[in-house]
Amino acid sequence: MISNFAKNLKIHNSITNKKESFKPIEKNNVGMYVCGPTVYSNAHLGNCRTFISFDLIFRYLKYLGYNVRYVRNLTDVGHLENEDENGEDKVSKKARLEKIEPMEVVQKYTLDFHDVLKKFNTLPPSIEPTASGHIIEQIQSIKQIIKSGYGYEVNGSVYFDIEKFNQSNKYGKLSGRNSDDMLNNSRDLDGSSDKKNPQDFALWKKADKSHIMNWESPWSNGFPGWHLECTSMSKKYLGDRFDIHGGGIDLKFPHHDCEIAQSEAIDGKNPANFWMHANMLTLNGKKMSKSTDNFVLPGQIFDGKNKIFSKPFNPNVLKFFMYQAHYRSVLDLSNDALLASEKGLSKLISGFQLIFELECNENESDFNVDKWVSNCFDKLNDDFNTPMLIAELFECVKFLNNVKIKSKNLNIVDKETIEKIFNSILFEILGFDLNNDEPNEKDSKTELIELLIKIRSQARENKNFKLSDEIRDELLSLGIKLNDNKNDSSFELI
Amino acid sequence: MISNFAKNLKIHNSITNKKESFKPIEKNNVGMYVCGPTVYSNAHLGNCRTFISFDLIFRYLKYLGYNVRYVRNLTDVGHLENEDENGEDKVSKKARLEKIEPMEVVQKYTLDFHDVLKKFNTLPPSIEPTASGHIIEQIQSIKQIIKSGYGYEVNGSVYFDIEKFNQSNKYGKLSGRNSDDMLNNSRDLDGSSDKKNPQDFALWKKADKSHIMNWESPWSNGFPGWHLECTSMSKKYLGDRFDIHGGGIDLKFPHHDCEIAQSEAIDGKNPANFWMHANMLTLNGKKMSKSTDNFVLPGQIFDGKNKIFSKPFNPNVLKFFMYQAHYRSVLDLSNDALLASEKGLSKLISGFQLIFELECNENESDFNVDKWVSNCFDKLNDDFNTPMLIAELFECVKFLNNVKIKSKNLNIVDKETIEKIFNSILFEILGFDLNNDEPNEKDSKTELIELLIKIRSQARENKNFKLSDEIRDELLSLGIKLNDNKNDSSFELI
Repeated sequence: MISNFAKNLKIHNSITNKKESFKPIEKNNVGMYVCGPTVYSNAHLGNCRTFISFDLIFRYLKYLGYNVRYVRNLTDVGHLENEDENGEDKVSKKARLEKIEPMEVVQKYTLDFHDVLKKFNTLPPSIEPTASGHIIEQIQSIKQIIKSGYGYEVNGSVYFDIEKFNQSNKYGKLSGRNSDDMLNNSRDLDGSSDKKNPQDFALWKKADKSHIMNWESPWSNGFPGWHLECTSMSKKYLGDRFDIHGGGIDLKFPHHDCEIAQSEAIDGKNPANFWMHANMLTLNGKKMSKSTDNFVLPGQIFDGKNKIFSKPFNPNVLKFFMYQAHYRSVLDLSNDALLASEKGLSKLISGFQLIFELECNENESDFNVDKWVSNCFDKLNDDFNTPMLIAELFECVKFLNNVKIKSKNLNIVDKETIEKIFNSILFEILGFDLNNDEPNEKDSKTELIELLIKIRSQARENKNFKLSDEIRDELLSLGIKLNDNKNDSSFELI
Repeated sequence: MISNFAKNLKIHNSITNKKESFKPIEKNNVGMYVCGPTVYSNAHLGNCRTFISFDLIFRYLKYLGYNVRYVRNLTDVGHLENEDENGEDKVSKKARLEKIEPMEVVQKYTLDFHDVLKKFNTLPPSIEPTASGHIIEQIQSIKQIIKSGYGYEVNGSVYFDIEKFNQSNKYGKLSGRNSDDMLNNSRDLDGSSDKKNPQDFALWKKADKSHIMNWESPWSNGFPGWHLECTSMSKKYLGDRFDIHGGGIDLKFPHHDCEIAQSEAIDGKNPANFWMHANMLTLNGKKMSKSTDNFVLPGQIFDGKNKIFSKPFNPNVLKFFMYQAHYRSVLDLSNDALLASEKGLSKLISGFQLIFELECNENESDFNVDKWVSNCFDKLNDDFNTPMLIAELFECVKFLNNVKIKSKNLNIVDKETIEKIFNSILFEILGFDLNNDEPNEKDSKTELIELLIKIRSQARENKNFKLSDEIRDELLSLGIKLNDNKNDSSFELI
């Protein structure tokens, strides 16, 4: 059953630049397509922000009761260096550098991507199709575009004809760029290009020697253009028109504008009702970049092995940090910001956990719980406004603290409501995972062992050797060996 | 660099039914293809045995210094119910039953498969291609088979012509079945079949309405025959002739015999130098089967939620149990067997860990360590004889126990050799993972908390309330809340 809260959901639509009421095309079902990563290098933190944002959206839509089919692709062929039509394929280039087969590159970085997203406790999408796995579907799409008159073949490659398309349609709807702008910003054709106009983009490229990955097609042995896969795969798994199409803001142009043009060329339809874009993540005020060393991998934040941060941070902290900004705002990562988020998250969680110790009665509460609940969902319904939602959660924590020192009253029914809703928001919707002890998995055990060592050295000071020996022997039987030094004991796991 | 041990490796080749010396086709590189699962249901324990066996082989070849490209496919289309040419596609059927898109079935069970194999600490293969992702390559293979004269098209489907093939080749090399046997065992054509002969098998099937998954081809909108994918994908990623082709013993016929026929039809080559088959796993003396309730999933063994076993078992225990038999022997799983394996593994690990406490000197050891090392590798080189290898490890443990009670001597150099080799065998080659605390992840922490509770109640009995309060408060600060009952304390994580 669909929750009552669902009817007030508003989502910012990038194509109208307005917040619009969300209603799915098919009553209880939502189709959502999100552009996934190109799997040629380790998962990028900026990408993680995008996928965490859409994970929240996926989780919230599911929480509302929708049956969501969430498709997120993996680009394993066709994404060229510098988005240049003559650039080398990113996966092939990495394969050449690492002296392995392109599909070994794909396997390696797909595993890394899945691993990192699992640490952030994001849910896997319903379907995760690959570009190389849908060559036939892409060839089919090209045939349809040629048939509609918007694709032309030259020397084994096929291009999308923007000028022709603009005679009856409008390219650049999403980014708002007009054709003249684009023309002015495109490099002049150098004479060796097969394209009619510089702004035309490739649907199929004939493979030259540098492209190891290529397939037979009616035009040449070659490979599909990067923009095409999302059109073919979203059509295949979600139909010609679906509810939400998302991605990072850098994909707005040209990638998403090209997708819209391709879809309109095939069947006259903009494929998605809502286009959504997650904004950028910067690091210490600047764009992340390997060449300037202003760069860090998610795993390096979790294990603390990096030059940017003063200590390791748990994935929950990073996620909380991201939620403290709205997904459409630029967000800057820094050591101070993460330290503050760590403190904030800990305050939020322990504040919530207070609820298990509170004494309640049947008198009226000094807190309007129904209002608080509807405020929380108002924030979520306001284009997934997580920072405002978190502020509401802290309002409740403030009240719980007052109940604890008995300056405010909480009745039992309200307590149960708060417990249920707070719990759902933290774990089901925001997707925090308190079992994720990374990097502190060993720490919680270590803290207990250190407490035992402390008790033991007090016992030794008090000449209670029975207790001190007992602790030593019991720990040994658990595989923990104590080594006594002069003033101190250390331990090792055996 | 390739280890000296590599030159003595012998592998049982199913096609000659003999142990043969292993030498890779390309000096330092090994290509290995293993038939992966059909991802339409939860990972099956029998399959796990196969993949754990090939994981050991992958690990050992890497340990020897080879650069191994290990390809293991995922069958997501074309595998028909009851291996019947007119059966429903297994993935499509599940999609129909679960009312979801076939690729959602694939995603769900691929994730489950990866998850289970990760718990067994198997290494991911180098490439994990899918059947649906290689339709073009399969169409290409069919064209070649037709061109060679061994494939024929009828009504949009394409079949492999066994009679014609047998005029110049021999179908059934691997299983040793001859064509007459097979003919006698095949059902008569019922008149509705398009096949020339009942033993012919499908290369391409025209899709009828029940097949949601289908692609354009020169013959019909349809889908590839199940046997074809492995031929096309092994050729693509490993070449026409590679070193090892493996799978479960149930795949020997017809699947692998069909693969050989297809490859020979395309380029005259049996694709693999070595064919290897892992044997069956039975449960309480009988074939595992859902319909008779003689069935258990790996996850149900790990968490103990099943009707077959008396307690949960760690994946390491199951793996050790499997290694106690040779991969080519039938192996029977039972509660007693797992209890014994649990004891055995624990004895082996703690026996090995003794080494960290032993007192050594520079006198001669009472143990021929060099001989022991070469014995260990002899067993591995004898077609990966893990039960004999484990016996060697226990020989060493027996000696270490004697060193501990000072009845035998161990010198320092030998100690270091044992430590290094034992460690490599346990963790690098056999792939045990002592950090895998499943299902006991919480237990190691619980044991420490219970020790603290015990010390605290002793303190309370002794009226040492300072200590008892200290323990309570310190635990609380670690998020562990003690609840005192009349005679006892329990705890909860807050």
